[in-house]
Amino acid sequence: MNAEIIAVGSELLLGQIANTNAQYISARFAESGINVYYHTVIGDNKDRLLKTLETAESRSDLIVITGGLGPTKDDLTKETAAAHIGCSLSYDEKSLEAIEQYYIQVGKPMTDNNKKQALVLEGSHVLFNFYGMAPGMVTKKQGITYVLLPGPPREMKPMVANQLLPYLNTSNSNRLIYSKVMRFFGIGEAELESRIEDILDQQTNPTVAPLAEDGEVTLRITSSSADEETGQKLVNDMIHKLEQRVGEFCYGYDGHNLLYKTSELLDEKSLTIASAESLTAGLFSSELAAIPGASRYLLGSLTVYNNDMKEQVLGVSGSLLAQYGAVSRACAESMAIKAQERFSSDIGISFTGVAGPGDNNGIAEGTVWIGVSYKESVSSFMVTLKGDRNFKRIRAVKHGMYALIQLLEKDAGPFVSENK
Amino acid sequence: MNAEIIAVGSELLLGQIANTNAQYISARFAESGINVYYHTVIGDNKDRLLKTLETAESRSDLIVITGGLGPTKDDLTKETAAAHIGCSLSYDEKSLEAIEQYYIQVGKPMTDNNKKQALVLEGSHVLFNFYGMAPGMVTKKQGITYVLLPGPPREMKPMVANQLLPYLNTSNSNRLIYSKVMRFFGIGEAELESRIEDILDQQTNPTVAPLAEDGEVTLRITSSSADEETGQKLVNDMIHKLEQRVGEFCYGYDGHNLLYKTSELLDEKSLTIASAESLTAGLFSSELAAIPGASRYLLGSLTVYNNDMKEQVLGVSGSLLAQYGAVSRACAESMAIKAQERFSSDIGISFTGVAGPGDNNGIAEGTVWIGVSYKESVSSFMVTLKGDRNFKRIRAVKHGMYALIQLLEKDAGPFVSENK
Repeated sequence: MNAEIIAVGSELLLGQIANTNAQYISARFAESGINVYYHTVIGDNKDRLLKTLETAESRSDLIVITGGLGPTKDDLTKETAAAHIGCSLSYDEKSLEAIEQYYIQVGKPMTDNNKKQALVLEGSHVLFNFYGMAPGMVTKKQGITYVLLPGPPREMKPMVANQLLPYLNTSNSNRLIYSKVMRFFGIGEAELESRIEDILDQQTNPTVAPLAEDGEVTLRITSSSADEETGQKLVNDMIHKLEQRVGEFCYGYDGHNLLYKTSELLDEKSLTIASAESLTAGLFSSELAAIPGASRYLLGSLTVYNNDMKEQVLGVSGSLLAQYGAVSRACAESMAIKAQERFSSDIGISFTGVAGPGDNNGIAEGTVWIGVSYKESVSSFMVTLKGDRNFKRIRAVKHGMYALIQLLEKDAGPFVSENK
Repeated sequence: MNAEIIAVGSELLLGQIANTNAQYISARFAESGINVYYHTVIGDNKDRLLKTLETAESRSDLIVITGGLGPTKDDLTKETAAAHIGCSLSYDEKSLEAIEQYYIQVGKPMTDNNKKQALVLEGSHVLFNFYGMAPGMVTKKQGITYVLLPGPPREMKPMVANQLLPYLNTSNSNRLIYSKVMRFFGIGEAELESRIEDILDQQTNPTVAPLAEDGEVTLRITSSSADEETGQKLVNDMIHKLEQRVGEFCYGYDGHNLLYKTSELLDEKSLTIASAESLTAGLFSSELAAIPGASRYLLGSLTVYNNDMKEQVLGVSGSLLAQYGAVSRACAESMAIKAQERFSSDIGISFTGVAGPGDNNGIAEGTVWIGVSYKESVSSFMVTLKGDRNFKRIRAVKHGMYALIQLLEKDAGPFVSENK
C-alpha cells in the first residue's frame, strides 16, 4: 500500500504548530508495513484541498486527511471530500447522541455547528471519537481508500492506534506484521547504535529501528511474515541477540515505559509510595498519577521549594541544611525518610537539585540528588543532567523511576544504603 | 509572494521526526508577510523530488527546499535541482575552506563526500553555514526563487533568520508585518468564532486567525503596511473591536499564556502560593516551577491522594470528609486553607475531582472542585471537564490559573467567597 498524508489547517502554514500528526501516523504506518511517500499540508481552502486530492489519487492508494472536521466554517474537509468522491453526508447516530449528551451534561445549548460534527460520508466505516466530538471515517472508491481523521492529536492518536490500524490490517493485508519494542535507560542513542552497528547494517527481516526520546532509547524490532508463529520467532530471536549485546541497559518491553513499569511494580507488590520534591516540584507524583488506579499506591507528595519549607513543612533538620546544603546526599536522604514518615508509606523518594539556569551557591547547574527510603534503609545517588530547565526535571524523574524499578525488581530484602 | 516548503528526508516519512523545519520557516515567513500555501515532505528520491518541483513551479514563486545537502549518497537535492533548472554546480570557496579547516583541526582526513558539501548552484547567492558544513543558497530562474537549506534545524534556523530573510526582504518586499495575539479562556473555539463571525468573514488587513490548543483559544491579528505606525494602528483598532465583543474572556496578549501570566502576577505583587492537590497530584506546582525564578513565589505543595492522607497529612477534618466527600466545595475550600496554613503562604489553591475513567461514589467523571484561599477569605468553584484522564488534569490546572489571574488582577481587597 502506498500512502500519503494530507494535513488541513492554516495554523500549520502559519507555523503556529508542527505537523506532528503526520509524524505519528507515519510511525504507526511504518510499523504496520504501510509505506508513506508524501506528506502535504494545505490551509483551510476548498480549491487547494481538491487539487491536492487529485494529485494524491494519481500516485497513492491510501489517502489520509487530518483536520477540518470541527464545528467552524473553516472546517470543510468532509464537505469537500464528499463532493469530490461523489457521496452524500449523513448523521452518525452514536456521535450525534454523544454530542447531545455532552451539552446536556454541561447545561449549555447545542448549536447547529456542533451538530455538524456528527456528519459522516454516507456508507463509510465510522471511527468513534472517544476524546472529542468529530468522528473519523474510512471509505473506499475506485480502489482508493480515503481516511478522514480529526486534527487534535489527543483525539486522532487513539483513533489511529485502536481503530484505524486494526481496520486497515484486517481489510487490506495478508502479511502479518509482528513487532516488539525494547526499552533502554542509562545508555545514549549513539553508544547503543555503535554497540549493535553490525546488526543495524545487516537488518532485513526483522527490521531494527532505534528511536531516542526524552533520554529513553528504544529499539523496535518488526517482522513481516505469512503466519504469526514465524513472525514471533523472527522477532524473539533478534531480541535474544540484542539482549546478549546490550541487555544490561534494557529495563522493559513494548508500552511498559519507566512510568508504566514503576506503577505496575508498585501495584503488583502492594507497596505505597510518597515523594518529597524540590527540583521536580510535584512532577514525580503528577506523572505517577497519570496512570488510572494510581491511588492504590501513590499516597501523596510534598513539594518544598526553599530551605525554610524543607525545615518547617517537611521536617528536615535546620542544622543538616546549614551543614550540607539542600542539594546534597544528606538532604536527599532526609527528605526521602521524611516523605515516608509523613505519609506512612512503604517507600519515600526525594528529588533535590539545581535546575538552572545558572549554578546555585557554587553547586553546578544540573547537579541532582535522588534519595530512596524503603523499609528501614535509605539510599541516594547523584546524577549530572544536561539540557534546559524542564528537560532536567523530566530526566530527574526518569532516573528516580529507574532506581525504583531496580529496587522493586530485586525486591530488596534489606536495601543497603550506598553510604552507610 | 506565494511560497511553498519542500522537506526532503526519509526519516520524516518514517515518522522518526516531525517537520519542525517547515513550522519554523512558515512562522518566520508569516512575520515577514510571505504567504505559505503548501508544505510537502518526500523521501530521498530523485524522481519524486523532480515531480514535486514541477508541481511547485506551477503554483508558487518562492520554493524552499530543506534537507539533502549533506555528504552521503542519499543527499541529492542540489544535483537534482541543478539538473532540473539547468545550471551547473561549482565549489563555494569559503565553504570549502571552512570544511578543510575543520578536518585539519580535528586531525582527520577530509573525504571526497565531505568536499561535495561545498558545491553550490552556479551563480546562486550563498548562505554560509556557521553551524555546520553545507551552505544554503538562493537562485532565481524564470521568475521563480529557489532556496536550498540544510536539514539540521540548528544549522537551518540561524541561516533563515540572519541571512535568508534579510536577503528576501531587501530583494522582494517593502511591506512591514505587525502582529499581536489575544489569549482567551472560558470560551470554546466554536463559541468565540460564532460571536465574531462577521469580523472573520470580512477580514482583509489586518487578518484575524483563531487557534485552539489544550482548551486555550487565541486570535492572531496581523497587519501588512508600508510603515510601522499604520501597521500598529490597524492591529490595535481591530483588537479594540474584538475586545468590545469578547473582551470578557481575554486574559492576556502575545506569549503571556496562563502559566506565564500567573507567575508574572505573583512575582509582581510579591505574593507567595502553595497548593493542596488531589486530582492534579502536583501538576499545578510542577507547572509553576517550570518558569525560572519560581522559588520567589512558589513555596510548595501537598499532594494528598486519598481521604486518609487529606485528613492525616493535610489536616482536613474527618467529619467534613464524611459529610461532604472529597469532591465537594467544602473539601476544596478546606484544602486551600490548609495549604495556606501549612506553608504560611499568601495564597492557597486546591484541586479535587474525579479524573476517571469512571465515576467515583456517584460523582460523575470530570467533576472538579477548585478552591482558592487568599488572606482571610476562601472561594471555590466547580467545573465539568471532558477528555481523557490527563487532559482533565491539565484543564483543571488551567482553570486554577485563570481563577488566580482574575483574583490577582482585581487585587481582591476582601475576596468574597461564593458561598459565604
